[in-house]
Amino acid sequence: MKIIAIDSSGLVASVAIVEDDKLVGEYNIQYKKTHSQTLLPMLNELKNMVELDLATIDAVALAAGPGSFTGLRIGSATAKGLGFALNVPLVEIPTLDGLACNLYGTDKLVCPIMDARRNQVYTGIYEFVKEKESVSVNEMKEYALSCLLAQCAVSIEEITAKCNELGREVIFLGDGVPVFEEKLSQLLKIPYSFAPAHMNRQRAAAFAMLAFRYLKEGKAVDAKKHAPEYLRLSQAERERKGENAVN
Amino acid sequence: MKIIAIDSSGLVASVAIVEDDKLVGEYNIQYKKTHSQTLLPMLNELKNMVELDLATIDAVALAAGPGSFTGLRIGSATAKGLGFALNVPLVEIPTLDGLACNLYGTDKLVCPIMDARRNQVYTGIYEFVKEKESVSVNEMKEYALSCLLAQCAVSIEEITAKCNELGREVIFLGDGVPVFEEKLSQLLKIPYSFAPAHMNRQRAAAFAMLAFRYLKEGKAVDAKKHAPEYLRLSQAERERKGENAVN
Repeated sequence: MKIIAIDSSGLVASVAIVEDDKLVGEYNIQYKKTHSQTLLPMLNELKNMVELDLATIDAVALAAGPGSFTGLRIGSATAKGLGFALNVPLVEIPTLDGLACNLYGTDKLVCPIMDARRNQVYTGIYEFVKEKESVSVNEMKEYALSCLLAQCAVSIEEITAKCNELGREVIFLGDGVPVFEEKLSQLLKIPYSFAPAHMNRQRAAAFAMLAFRYLKEGKAVDAKKHAPEYLRLSQAERERKGENAVN
Repeated sequence: MKIIAIDSSGLVASVAIVEDDKLVGEYNIQYKKTHSQTLLPMLNELKNMVELDLATIDAVALAAGPGSFTGLRIGSATAKGLGFALNVPLVEIPTLDGLACNLYGTDKLVCPIMDARRNQVYTGIYEFVKEKESVSVNEMKEYALSCLLAQCAVSIEEITAKCNELGREVIFLGDGVPVFEEKLSQLLKIPYSFAPAHMNRQRAAAFAMLAFRYLKEGKAVDAKKHAPEYLRLSQAERERKGENAVN
């Protein structure tokens, strides 16, 4: 089974082609261009480099939100276009879940934080748990992502309080880390660390790990039905609501 | 500090640009083209995409071996060319150390295995250890790669015996995994798992994590002095030695 995965939910633009256990190719950048300038050219470049026959693709996975509203819309439009054209389903991966997969294999809690502006972060708390208890001592293990706090928009105070309450060591990652680094050091009462550069931002290839599981579980959607998950109202919607409240 | 990292030691071709804690860009493929067809075009593509000014590069890191002899020579030639042209030093990362960095943050042992042919694997055993013991409970941690068995060329029997002797859970990765999967399941007497697709092959970006440390420790080399570390004799050298022994 072969999938294309894309992510444009934050500052990173990321595309990957994954075939079962094989990462055929990935291309990730974190640069000040808009995703409409980068995402499709990157996918086209990667497709040509690995001589991908688009007819062999089984699904398109994407970071389905939360994230930058414009970024999510570019990702959704791209995934929908591919889904329609190739007649394959989409696999909607919650952005924070996908981010957490960067840290596969850790025994620590994983807390991705994305800067959501207006004093909020998009975040969640995750751990990796053994798929099944072993029968024999040498059995091959597999770890699955498990969610202790589903992705949400909260204040940095709320998420650090939740981490303190859980009382376990946490690895933080995401574009919220540099923004809230000082706050984190003030508020946390637990051991913690920050993921290094090669693991600290969105990677479409990591989203693909969850996409294969979703596909097995039948959790793919028709390209027509897909819509990004913003988790919050857009600025325009908020302002209109504000007006209505005043009027 | 900004570096270019490249890897062509195995089946993967990988390039990355990393600036301190920021992965500016990476491009990785695992495809049947030769590295001479892919590595420089990939770097050129990435450089153009992120409008990299090569004059801002401080060093070139590379997977310095072991690995495919031809692959290593393409990587070394490329790194030397860049080092000469940009007048920057090279940072030679042992291939197995760089591979192990994919699993940053795990509490398990990490054992990368690359198929070395002739019934051998290039391998090593690693763990991540805390940089320093904490003074206070909430102190920020950093983990460093620590080597329990330095990279070497041994049989699959030898490396699995060493893993059994250490008695801890191990995560395996590398192109040797699909080749020796059955042997591993027969020989291992400990719990183990295989890294998922997004973490199971060389990533230049992971090599960069070690490169920054090497640079801090003054472990860079002049481009003129660099030579890859093959760990074994080439086939031609072996055959000549064999002839000499006969004569």
